[in-house]
Amino acid sequence: MRASDTAVTAYEQISCAVADGIATLTLDRPEARNGYTPQMADELAHALRAADADHAVRVVVLTGAGRDFCVGADLSAGRDKGEGFSQDVGKETLRQLEEGSYQEPAGLVTRELYALNKPVIAAVRGAAVGVGSTMLLPADYRLAAHGTKFGFPFTRRGIVPEGASAWFLPRLVGLGRAMDWLVSGRIVPADEALAAGLVHSLHAPDEVLDAAYALARELVAHTAPVSVAITRQLVYRMAWAESPEDVHRLDSRLVFDTVRGADAREGVRSFFERRPPRFPGRVPEDLPPYLPWSQARPGDTEV
Amino acid sequence: MRASDTAVTAYEQISCAVADGIATLTLDRPEARNGYTPQMADELAHALRAADADHAVRVVVLTGAGRDFCVGADLSAGRDKGEGFSQDVGKETLRQLEEGSYQEPAGLVTRELYALNKPVIAAVRGAAVGVGSTMLLPADYRLAAHGTKFGFPFTRRGIVPEGASAWFLPRLVGLGRAMDWLVSGRIVPADEALAAGLVHSLHAPDEVLDAAYALARELVAHTAPVSVAITRQLVYRMAWAESPEDVHRLDSRLVFDTVRGADAREGVRSFFERRPPRFPGRVPEDLPPYLPWSQARPGDTEV
Amino acid sequence: MRASDTAVTAYEQISCAVADGIATLTLDRPEARNGYTPQMADELAHALRAADADHAVRVVVLTGAGRDFCVGADLSAGRDKGEGFSQDVGKETLRQLEEGSYQEPAGLVTRELYALNKPVIAAVRGAAVGVGSTMLLPADYRLAAHGTKFGFPFTRRGIVPEGASAWFLPRLVGLGRAMDWLVSGRIVPADEALAAGLVHSLHAPDEVLDAAYALARELVAHTAPVSVAITRQLVYRMAWAESPEDVHRLDSRLVFDTVRGADAREGVRSFFERRPPRFPGRVPEDLPPYLPWSQARPGDTEV
Repeated sequence: MRASDTAVTAYEQISCAVADGIATLTLDRPEARNGYTPQMADELAHALRAADADHAVRVVVLTGAGRDFCVGADLSAGRDKGEGFSQDVGKETLRQLEEGSYQEPAGLVTRELYALNKPVIAAVRGAAVGVGSTMLLPADYRLAAHGTKFGFPFTRRGIVPEGASAWFLPRLVGLGRAMDWLVSGRIVPADEALAAGLVHSLHAPDEVLDAAYALARELVAHTAPVSVAITRQLVYRMAWAESPEDVHRLDSRLVFDTVRGADAREGVRSFFERRPPRFPGRVPEDLPPYLPWSQARPGDTEV
Repeated sequence: MRASDTAVTAYEQISCAVADGIATLTLDRPEARNGYTPQMADELAHALRAADADHAVRVVVLTGAGRDFCVGADLSAGRDKGEGFSQDVGKETLRQLEEGSYQEPAGLVTRELYALNKPVIAAVRGAAVGVGSTMLLPADYRLAAHGTKFGFPFTRRGIVPEGASAWFLPRLVGLGRAMDWLVSGRIVPADEALAAGLVHSLHAPDEVLDAAYALARELVAHTAPVSVAITRQLVYRMAWAESPEDVHRLDSRLVFDTVRGADAREGVRSFFERRPPRFPGRVPEDLPPYLPWSQARPGDTEV
Repeated sequence: MRASDTAVTAYEQISCAVADGIATLTLDRPEARNGYTPQMADELAHALRAADADHAVRVVVLTGAGRDFCVGADLSAGRDKGEGFSQDVGKETLRQLEEGSYQEPAGLVTRELYALNKPVIAAVRGAAVGVGSTMLLPADYRLAAHGTKFGFPFTRRGIVPEGASAWFLPRLVGLGRAMDWLVSGRIVPADEALAAGLVHSLHAPDEVLDAAYALARELVAHTAPVSVAITRQLVYRMAWAESPEDVHRLDSRLVFDTVRGADAREGVRSFFERRPPRFPGRVPEDLPPYLPWSQARPGDTEV
């Protein structure tokens, strides 16, 4: 059993609210500048799974309470003991390490984001450093405040990039910039992140969350949940193969089936009637049963 | 047998002309804003195969008659019946679906473009939406008029991205922009498409085709057909492997062989003599027999 | 045995100097505009292997003597004989061709750069054409002078892209620009290379080497050698898989181990004490023994 499967009845380090089809997940340790902890990771993973399973959730907004998104791993425990990063290791962790199923806390969350059937819009400001940057990479959109500081300072702390950021970052900003950012560990200013394609748009610090909601509402209003879920996973799961052949084969079947479905009927009708669509399909209930990634949820390899 | 193998004696929905080494393929239903139909797909696929087999063709220019490149799938049949997209399914299609060889109409063309041994320059203006965008992705160049509207509106119609666009688009514009465009289904203005690297250059609407011809003439005048064919396929077929080792191995052999060939002799001589080259090698006749993709033409997996 | 394994006691076509943790490799045939030869390739490969094995070397700076970085393959031998490229083939080359282990001279060097455990900063000006461009692709940084001319003119000489450039280039500049540059073989101006992400920054011609040293000193001062080596190889060896799962698994173990290591202790302490770090770990000596690529050095497949 993974930590994130534990029943979490209430969150202590994040908050979660659902309204109008939008689940807002907020890192909620503003007094520690949202320093990341194993508990925060577990709570985030749990909240993401719950959002994924709930068809009332159409879009996830990920943000932080206070002036920063997240300053990185919380070092306070280690600092007190003069140890650097936390050294505590439970029995369960040792067992996972042995069998190769151990997930460090950033990857615990990036795997859930990657597997999600709903799009994620991140709204960040202040510091978004270390896991505060890596955690954002599998989001669909990164909206940032002017002045936001991104950074992957792992080489400057004697550790390594986490959360499969080595996989995500070159796909987002190209190999050259990814090498620069990951090897140097330097701070990446918001303007550079925008120019590199990491950030979708820049906003005033007190407007970035509103911008995220405006975008979320547009997605809720105009897109079909089943189409969005399939599209997101087509890109994440199928687009990185050596050849486009498998995508060709799968999207041919998906086009054939969806074109004949109720969502497409509504999509075309609403288009001709110049009115907002009301798509009947729900996620995850109405996803086609033959999607090759539908069995592969994070953690399944552990069974 | 695939539809595109059928002998097409004359095209009804496209036109095709060859002059000065340049084959111009024109979507030719301006009265329907070049709405895409299965017949248009078959005709395009056929014309691309013919261009590939004809060594008189050095470059393909792909464009549309009238003010738009292509507004997407033709919805007129479905609209009349209140069905949305067309519902007609032949016996042959059902058989292909069963055996997994079915190709939806956009992929029928993108597979041919991908496999082509000649470069493709697309010249577009007006609307290039839906298949009008996905069809362009395997072209080598996309030249566009100011004001061209691109878009992947699949999630807004209740369907999914077609033509292996999930494979091509992230490679062209990066993962972040691809997710944005594919998930939101929004219109992408020409300026944004240029900044993202989807478009090579912008032109006045009545100059975009001339610009495509100017570029095509430059390719015809300065490049060796065999070199171009190998280069294009090296990138499409070998460049997406996990490791560069297979490319290293193959390009080592290709460098060794081509350096000793008649085209290289002419390439170096014309360079020193400061005159345009006259490369003797022809495509497909003079392609090396050992190219790993030379057996793999679209449709071959069906046999 | 590969040519680069031969004991080279002194270099004739390059120069190599190590100071302050920085190895400077200089193409040193300014009278021939650093025209590339098989001997230069062997010397570069040898010098890179030596830099990799020497823990006193933290960063490699790659540059050219005189006003150009490299004008491409040296054509003087072929020109004299009216043959184009050099035609000389030794017995050993024929044997390698037969068994599939032959490496053309550009790939001989790009494989070493790819496998390197130290970051590479290229400082270029003037012409960087043909192998003068392909050789740069596996560097971590390309700093260029204003006015530098890049180019991949292979299709204009009747040959093909070398050095696995078909693998590297689309990852650096996107598929569209890579196709344009490789298919057309045209010259790519420095400004375009910067905008496309190929070049990190532009400088005055007499300042580009100083800028490379300033960046090299920053990497030496602030980053942990072991972290940098692992990070660079995580991106090169693991980041191009279809799925992020293998990266997740490996970086989880690496995070667990490095967080508990001496480098991380120093990284966190120096961060809190606001002083430059003195990381104890050395490369290659202190690399974890379980890195999946640690056995795979260039040339190993030949044994």
